[in-house]
Amino acid sequence: MGQVPLVVLTRPQMGENIGAAARAMLNFGLEHMRLVAPRDGWPNPAATAMASGASVVLDHAGVFPDVGAAVADCDYVYATTARSRGLVKPVLTPETAMAEARAMIAAGKRVAVLFGPERAGLENDDVAHANAIITVPVNPGFYSLNLAQCVLLTAYEWMRQGTDVPGMRLDLAGTDLASAIELEKLGDHFEEKLEAANFFHPPEKAPFMKMNLRNMLGRWGMTRSEAQTLHGILRQLVRGRS
Amino acid sequence: MGQVPLVVLTRPQMGENIGAAARAMLNFGLEHMRLVAPRDGWPNPAATAMASGASVVLDHAGVFPDVGAAVADCDYVYATTARSRGLVKPVLTPETAMAEARAMIAAGKRVAVLFGPERAGLENDDVAHANAIITVPVNPGFYSLNLAQCVLLTAYEWMRQGTDVPGMRLDLAGTDLASAIELEKLGDHFEEKLEAANFFHPPEKAPFMKMNLRNMLGRWGMTRSEAQTLHGILRQLVRGRS
Repeated sequence: MGQVPLVVLTRPQMGENIGAAARAMLNFGLEHMRLVAPRDGWPNPAATAMASGASVVLDHAGVFPDVGAAVADCDYVYATTARSRGLVKPVLTPETAMAEARAMIAAGKRVAVLFGPERAGLENDDVAHANAIITVPVNPGFYSLNLAQCVLLTAYEWMRQGTDVPGMRLDLAGTDLASAIELEKLGDHFEEKLEAANFFHPPEKAPFMKMNLRNMLGRWGMTRSEAQTLHGILRQLVRGRS
Repeated sequence: MGQVPLVVLTRPQMGENIGAAARAMLNFGLEHMRLVAPRDGWPNPAATAMASGASVVLDHAGVFPDVGAAVADCDYVYATTARSRGLVKPVLTPETAMAEARAMIAAGKRVAVLFGPERAGLENDDVAHANAIITVPVNPGFYSLNLAQCVLLTAYEWMRQGTDVPGMRLDLAGTDLASAIELEKLGDHFEEKLEAANFFHPPEKAPFMKMNLRNMLGRWGMTRSEAQTLHGILRQLVRGRS
């Protein structure tokens, strides 16, 4: 239970939003929800209906009477809030907070993130239970993040920083990149057909034009099947011309 | 118009989702929306109602008959999709894609990001118009991101990488950190009251205990008002004892 941050929904109002928060969590691997005094009691059929495939999160959610009880066994608590609270606290971006949380959890600590009720957000009495504040840096002229979106962005940062998904990979769609020898043969084929078509003109520029051609074919990073396609195009163009 | 990525919603179905996408965009500073063949025509009152404060995004949205027309003036196009497409394409995380997009836009290029219809997502004919694919790295066992959430995460990455918001700051709530001399006086006050209470015992350990006390008071990073509170506590405790 201590291996990912706990998500603590404080006095949530609509069951649908509890379910949407569960979905947002599970998208990014957060499974442990705690509920503080949910307005419509618990369990909540509207929450379960909205959670759909994420209802496992709700099935294991703990229910607590107040924030103090919900975080009593936690070592470090973040409160998410959009505005300054008149409390002296560190204010972190989700990025920095989740980096800290990863380090604390790796050291065996239990970390929780508090989210407030849909409209009003957390009260100062709730925030006082937290060690630090998370504020999402939004457009100062427009803020409209709802509960599930706040949970989503926090969970996204948690997974983003722990994922080993490469920032970029090439989807080869079942084929493979053309080998050097395949590119060489393709270059030969181009030269042959272009020589025959008097493409390399004037003759003194031919070596430069051929070098550029080889360079271009190599630089494109083409696949084996794309090389075959170009072979076919070369053959077919010449056939059509003759 | 070329200074942030364009968001292209392809054949969106529900007006509410167009409005929600506009809100997601504006939270993170993306203002330029293009619509490809919206199912219910355009303008769409349901979109405007949902967009609320973000309706300015809808007011300036361009409407195009197909993806090719919508991206004709763009230099680089990303397609967001969750699954492999059988097309040879680079596949990027939102993080890497928005880092690339920032570099391209800084170089004067126009960048667009395609999003598909709510349920089916983009078709291969749409993806073929893109230079690269964005796939959000989610929990492989659970994927439930909706259109507005995909837009939100992409826009969030755009702003996250361009923001100068510090990862952590201290909300001082109108007060200031205690100065060195204030901490010195507070330490003196502690020592005075604790000497009187025979706290520093046994005598040979007193220097070490005092050093730890000074270190602790300095390390806490307390504010001026917290230091005043501690002065008051010291006075009051002694008063109660006598």
